Amino acid sequence: MRILVLGGDGYLGWPTALHLSDCGHEVAVADNYARRGYDHELGVDSLVPIASMRERVEAWREVSGRTIRSYYGDLVDDDFAVEMLRDFRPDTVVHFAEQRAAPYSMIDRKHAVYTQHNNVVGTLNLLFAIQEVDPEIHLVKLGTMGEYGTPNIDIEEGWLDVEHKGRTDRMLFPKKPGSFYHLSKVHDSHNLEFACRIWGMRATDLNQGVVYGQQTPQTSRDPRLATRFDYDAVFGTVLNRFVIQAVLGHPLTVYGSGGQTRGLIDIRDTVECIRLASENPAERGEFRVFNQMTESFSVEEIAKVVANSYDGAVEVEHLENPRVEQAEHYYNVVHTGLVELGLQPHLLSNTLIESLFSVAEAHKERVDLGAMRPTVEWRKAASPLRADQ
Amino acid sequence: MRILVLGGDGYLGWPTALHLSDCGHEVAVADNYARRGYDHELGVDSLVPIASMRERVEAWREVSGRTIRSYYGDLVDDDFAVEMLRDFRPDTVVHFAEQRAAPYSMIDRKHAVYTQHNNVVGTLNLLFAIQEVDPEIHLVKLGTMGEYGTPNIDIEEGWLDVEHKGRTDRMLFPKKPGSFYHLSKVHDSHNLEFACRIWGMRATDLNQGVVYGQQTPQTSRDPRLATRFDYDAVFGTVLNRFVIQAVLGHPLTVYGSGGQTRGLIDIRDTVECIRLASENPAERGEFRVFNQMTESFSVEEIAKVVANSYDGAVEVEHLENPRVEQAEHYYNVVHTGLVELGLQPHLLSNTLIESLFSVAEAHKERVDLGAMRPTVEWRKAASPLRADQ
Repeated sequence: MRILVLGGDGYLGWPTALHLSDCGHEVAVADNYARRGYDHELGVDSLVPIASMRERVEAWREVSGRTIRSYYGDLVDDDFAVEMLRDFRPDTVVHFAEQRAAPYSMIDRKHAVYTQHNNVVGTLNLLFAIQEVDPEIHLVKLGTMGEYGTPNIDIEEGWLDVEHKGRTDRMLFPKKPGSFYHLSKVHDSHNLEFACRIWGMRATDLNQGVVYGQQTPQTSRDPRLATRFDYDAVFGTVLNRFVIQAVLGHPLTVYGSGGQTRGLIDIRDTVECIRLASENPAERGEFRVFNQMTESFSVEEIAKVVANSYDGAVEVEHLENPRVEQAEHYYNVVHTGLVELGLQPHLLSNTLIESLFSVAEAHKERVDLGAMRPTVEWRKAASPLRADQ
Repeated sequence: MRILVLGGDGYLGWPTALHLSDCGHEVAVADNYARRGYDHELGVDSLVPIASMRERVEAWREVSGRTIRSYYGDLVDDDFAVEMLRDFRPDTVVHFAEQRAAPYSMIDRKHAVYTQHNNVVGTLNLLFAIQEVDPEIHLVKLGTMGEYGTPNIDIEEGWLDVEHKGRTDRMLFPKKPGSFYHLSKVHDSHNLEFACRIWGMRATDLNQGVVYGQQTPQTSRDPRLATRFDYDAVFGTVLNRFVIQAVLGHPLTVYGSGGQTRGLIDIRDTVECIRLASENPAERGEFRVFNQMTESFSVEEIAKVVANSYDGAVEVEHLENPRVEQAEHYYNVVHTGLVELGLQPHLLSNTLIESLFSVAEAHKERVDLGAMRPTVEWRKAASPLRADQ
């Protein structure tokens, strides 16, 4: 199968491309390197050094004998989207190519507008490009569990059977996203469902949980194949940040009470979910949704897992929550679709966390402590960027 | 009360500004005149000639002695949004300033992207500008009944009490919009609800039905105060188009079986709804939704009303439906919120239609028959513009 991974230079896009290539697919990646640009803007960096795309592709050729083609461009440029599809003629397009940090979208007006414009217009261009080049192409689109928020009912996979005043309908699950970034994914989902409905497009929307881990069997074959490891308060995700804080003897920073619960997934499961969705495409006209997560934990519980696994003293510090979110809430998520396709989850275990500790240990001299303190305030329409403080 | 009407040069924005001014409010309008530009682009025009904003404001001053201030600018320009709010210091902002035609958004990729960018970014800029200038400002935002689509359950006013697997929550009503334009309004609604939730903004989202009629007590006081009367297949709405077709002895063009049912509202009720929403603002943090419509009719029924009211022979022609929509469906809408605030609906009556017939009769030499044929195809990702045919 020919698979094009958009955002193939990112934290998950790159390991996904390697996994798909390793499984025998013809893989190409595309990126505008915006994620590397955000590092420059915010004055932060991946804990683990990452090679350039040219070096990555060359290293993969050396260790695997397989070629990954690379496109440079921006989906907001519709000519680029069309020309790339014409050139590569994919069966499947995996779409990671969006600004993906909630705090980044909440910095100020400019970052909110950038996030929604970049994500929504990029995806719209992609929908039209697929129609123009080959409507048979299956789009595998990355969404987020954050689209749902924390409703007081079970979270189903994208659709909800509603009974109301004695009548019934199958409707899109009502969303209550928690940032302008999460909102952009909700907008994408609505646009995507419409494209399936009017054009007979085939699409899979993957509402992904918080991803943890940094290594896959492919990325660990050569240091040049490593993917990013973000720990800063804007792009870092909670478990990865706690691991680094533990290694540095820094308190684990829990926002608020830590009662807020989220779905999690191991990076090795993420790349496998993408393979499963790609190899089992949605039907023409089908808007298929999977909740791409394997377990739920509260932030407090994640802190405890990290503290208990680390071979040293770990403190937990509760910071005022910069986000607007429910501190205590119901959270029960249906996530059987990918398991039915064959996913065998890696559950959060000491083994994995220990490997994360050793990654953090190996690079701890690169840590910028200041970057871990939250500076983006949800309740304010404009937060100072770190550089301005 | 100081009320700023964005999109104040449009079909509904202008009569709204006059009604509010007539009721004693301090009114300003803002527009980028994009709607007049679409006429040039598509080679169409309002059936009723409309004066320039300068002439309109001057005519209103002459007949009423009241002043309406006018701002020229684009909400996509965030400086404009902030400076205008700083200058006028409104208590209420009424937001009509969006691209509002479903067929226009379905012409091709460029028009879809333009519509979502213009509407979503313009509204985002407005949300941030209100936060920056005065978070007490009440935003009255025009949405559309088309956000809901045609679900098989009753359509509630924005929110739905959901019971699922023995648990309950009050959730945003699930939406199934029918065009990239309608989608842009769904995106706006989600962004707006979030702004209420995190910033304590006060907002009223008005899901408006299809508006008919062309005169209000204010616009009929002077020909220079007239508002637009659109009948073309892109910007014209169904009842207005049928009236013109009847007057010309042209068959009424019903798309498909005509079983598709929509909510309707008289233009005189629209302007009154805006007054009621403005004078009874939402609370801080409240995302209040009203379904701004007074009656439901199928397209076939609307054709019959027009045919029966017209004093002459009227034929009905069924065209292949260029849109993707359900031909026969359940449609029952709750719309009590505005009535509880005091709305006394004008229901569709022969009287009104007769006044519409006389407007059409007076200007029938201006009709471009070709402009009434649908050229935009929902099922194709690109439709030829009339000028290219």
